[in-house]
Amino acid sequence: MTNTATRSLYDEYIKGMQTIADLRYAAAVLQWDQETYLPPKGAPVRGQQIATLSEIAHKYFTDEKLGGQLQDLLAGDNLLANEKRNVELSWQDYSKQKKFPSSFVRTLAEAVNQSFHSWMEARKANDFSVFAKSLTRLIELKKQEADMLGYEQHPYNALLDDHDKGATVQLLDGVFSAIQQPLKDLLGKIADQQPADDSFLQQHFPKDKQWQFGLQVVKELGYDMEAGRQDISEHPFTTNFNSQDVRITTRIDENDLSNMVWSCIHEAGHALYEQGLPPGEYGLPLGEPASYTIHESQSRLWENHVGRSRAFCERWLPVLQEYFPQQLGKVSVEQFYKGINKVQPSLIRTEADELTYHFHIMIRYELEKLLIGGSMTVQDIPGYWNEQYRKLMGVQVPGDRQGCLQDVHWSHGSFGYFPTYSLGSFYAAQFYAFANQAIPDLNGQIKQGNTAPLLQWLRTAVHQKGRRFTSEELCKDICGETLNIEYFTGYLLDKYKDIYKF
Amino acid sequence: MTNTATRSLYDEYIKGMQTIADLRYAAAVLQWDQETYLPPKGAPVRGQQIATLSEIAHKYFTDEKLGGQLQDLLAGDNLLANEKRNVELSWQDYSKQKKFPSSFVRTLAEAVNQSFHSWMEARKANDFSVFAKSLTRLIELKKQEADMLGYEQHPYNALLDDHDKGATVQLLDGVFSAIQQPLKDLLGKIADQQPADDSFLQQHFPKDKQWQFGLQVVKELGYDMEAGRQDISEHPFTTNFNSQDVRITTRIDENDLSNMVWSCIHEAGHALYEQGLPPGEYGLPLGEPASYTIHESQSRLWENHVGRSRAFCERWLPVLQEYFPQQLGKVSVEQFYKGINKVQPSLIRTEADELTYHFHIMIRYELEKLLIGGSMTVQDIPGYWNEQYRKLMGVQVPGDRQGCLQDVHWSHGSFGYFPTYSLGSFYAAQFYAFANQAIPDLNGQIKQGNTAPLLQWLRTAVHQKGRRFTSEELCKDICGETLNIEYFTGYLLDKYKDIYKF
Repeated sequence: MTNTATRSLYDEYIKGMQTIADLRYAAAVLQWDQETYLPPKGAPVRGQQIATLSEIAHKYFTDEKLGGQLQDLLAGDNLLANEKRNVELSWQDYSKQKKFPSSFVRTLAEAVNQSFHSWMEARKANDFSVFAKSLTRLIELKKQEADMLGYEQHPYNALLDDHDKGATVQLLDGVFSAIQQPLKDLLGKIADQQPADDSFLQQHFPKDKQWQFGLQVVKELGYDMEAGRQDISEHPFTTNFNSQDVRITTRIDENDLSNMVWSCIHEAGHALYEQGLPPGEYGLPLGEPASYTIHESQSRLWENHVGRSRAFCERWLPVLQEYFPQQLGKVSVEQFYKGINKVQPSLIRTEADELTYHFHIMIRYELEKLLIGGSMTVQDIPGYWNEQYRKLMGVQVPGDRQGCLQDVHWSHGSFGYFPTYSLGSFYAAQFYAFANQAIPDLNGQIKQGNTAPLLQWLRTAVHQKGRRFTSEELCKDICGETLNIEYFTGYLLDKYKDIYKF
Repeated sequence: MTNTATRSLYDEYIKGMQTIADLRYAAAVLQWDQETYLPPKGAPVRGQQIATLSEIAHKYFTDEKLGGQLQDLLAGDNLLANEKRNVELSWQDYSKQKKFPSSFVRTLAEAVNQSFHSWMEARKANDFSVFAKSLTRLIELKKQEADMLGYEQHPYNALLDDHDKGATVQLLDGVFSAIQQPLKDLLGKIADQQPADDSFLQQHFPKDKQWQFGLQVVKELGYDMEAGRQDISEHPFTTNFNSQDVRITTRIDENDLSNMVWSCIHEAGHALYEQGLPPGEYGLPLGEPASYTIHESQSRLWENHVGRSRAFCERWLPVLQEYFPQQLGKVSVEQFYKGINKVQPSLIRTEADELTYHFHIMIRYELEKLLIGGSMTVQDIPGYWNEQYRKLMGVQVPGDRQGCLQDVHWSHGSFGYFPTYSLGSFYAAQFYAFANQAIPDLNGQIKQGNTAPLLQWLRTAVHQKGRRFTSEELCKDICGETLNIEYFTGYLLDKYKDIYKF
């Protein structure tokens, strides 16, 4: 192919990919609206509208014409390295999507919508059985999806791979079994000490002041409000419609300050990643994040390594005291630091500390593996759940709402997502160790409210690379080795030794 | 065709139409978001996303397969009357849309987006010349559109017909020339009297209280907030994504109460129409409004016949006085009624009284006719505009922002829209006269805050008929005759005689 022909073909490919992106992001706008502003009676038709956009996007993406273009581009030799990588990744995606008939995509989208509503009702009723039927159907569809995608050894591998290319049951079994005992040991040591007091977080904090504080924090972390916005939703999330429109949501509990603060930082971590993706790659793989795992590495890095550090407390406690003099005026930095790092087995994943968090994930991981593998039925979930919470954390689950109905993910059809939270946390520790080496006096900078050097480091190390690398490759690129959980266990040990003095 | 075949074909037709509706309403959600919540840097890609959805919707709607289905359904004889009407109207729309190539639809959508931004800049600069280039391009495209659509006598007829089937230059020339002198005479009589005092409206009215009041009013008028919501935008508008999700926006000027109040009522009038369209006809013509003109008849009816009536003042002034005791505590119902009905030639259409409003429309109508007819160029607009405002209303235009740049419509590519405001007002007067006859003590009901009987009458007379009739046919159906402007002139004469005592 001549260079001119390659150029014109590549332009056609971009145009096609942008059309698909337009459709997908339009669906994302409709979804964002659904979670923030949709009037209740608008919900049924909205589900249909989103399903239609998904189906059409899929139809466009699996068009043989695009396949032909991709093959021609791959066969040619006039592409720049970046362009070639885009085409390779698109070909990967195309080949994967070709495995799904459009009707399946629509069926799945509709089942998800239906499932989401039945999950909401089940939560209201505090009764898992209300959700069981549509979850059974959804799992049936996810099994079909795994079969269509193909897999080695375990059908769950197909779904894991979809969230983090290369992730497998083998990898996760290894990681979780290696980390479980050290975490249990550490938890035991902490349990022997004087428990941390976080009661100062459970006072009355007026909604509008919380809202203002959250905004002030995410802005200072570098979240560009000219290319984003924050709104209220029932479940905090980040979404984006291009790298110049990246939105976050939060929720505010007037009787618990922590709920809002660290969820804002978490979502800002996601948003900083999206805002830092290469501009000018709209609709193309290099304009996308590396994986769900790397996405979580960014949110967990900001939430925990930055947001739960002593330096961060030194920066922000005085500000919080201005917002809430009565509630926090007498809390010292040390008290605050210890309080927000209180370790205690608990019921709710999103409110868990950095240590016991991973027990929550392990339970969900095992459950998903059993469900997708076919060795457990949906009816058995509550029993298994409650049993595991008792065994692993010694926690009594009082009802399904605070048990197996707590997370929205399954109702969204997201199986294979939860493990990315743990993997993301482990990568975060590893990346942060390298950032700490690379940035002079990182803690001092955070203490002064200057997180720009950290953001800049992440921009270069992670964000600007888009989807060029898989999680594993990216880790090697940054750290010279693949995932090493000792960074994470070492980080926790240092932190809790310091806090709990053992 | 057997009945079974007809049924299955009609179902296919519905499915196809709903897919197109999903795409169009998705574009509407993106547009709503653009006007309310879009972060500034997100604007360029948003324009592209909307253009893509419009182009794909057009592609689906002009698919030969749909055309074939429609012809087969029209040829058969097993359809119910409603179904037949749907198919006839879809065929009309299909035949019209077939005249546009998809590339033209995209070009137009992109030109509109570009034009909107250059209009915004021109307004900022108070300089029409900044807008001239993209307006010229847009008018060129609208002329092409008229040529593609085809027309008799005047190219503007094609664009008028698009907003109100059957409306022509001949009709409008007739209506406007018949009404101009009576309006001038009436204006002369009013000018001879003591001018009304509306200075109480121009005080400081805090934003959040105005917001609450506006919401209270629209709710009492029957706007269902479970199937809608209100937000802030620069230009108030109504949009809908199905009859169960109909949204309005408003703007608030802290130094002018009237701006918010009557624009809320106006938009609620539009929204009540959309919420009252036949449910179960999503995506089909019978689920759509009759025309832009009938839409305006609803908004203007609520805004003026209800919202500017003495009965309405009696209902709402006491409430306003509770919200704003200092500003309005001493204003009497008579003062209020006279103040909100002050007649005075002015610069800004949306703030004009019910009488001089139509001079604003006449000027725009003549201008559009000249521009689309090709006997005026864009460069001549400001001169012509200022000259006409001087001649028709004796008003001196101080700059383009308050002159020919005041309305957003042209930047949206809406040519042929303005006349629907006048026609809508005239129909409103005619419909309201019939409602007044049909509903016992309508004024007494309004005074007591009970507009439910009026809404019910409109639901039956107008809303539930969807797009079954053209404006003219609907008027005949309700009133037994076609548009008769004497209802409007009679209404104004009675009202102002009473207020100005001549």
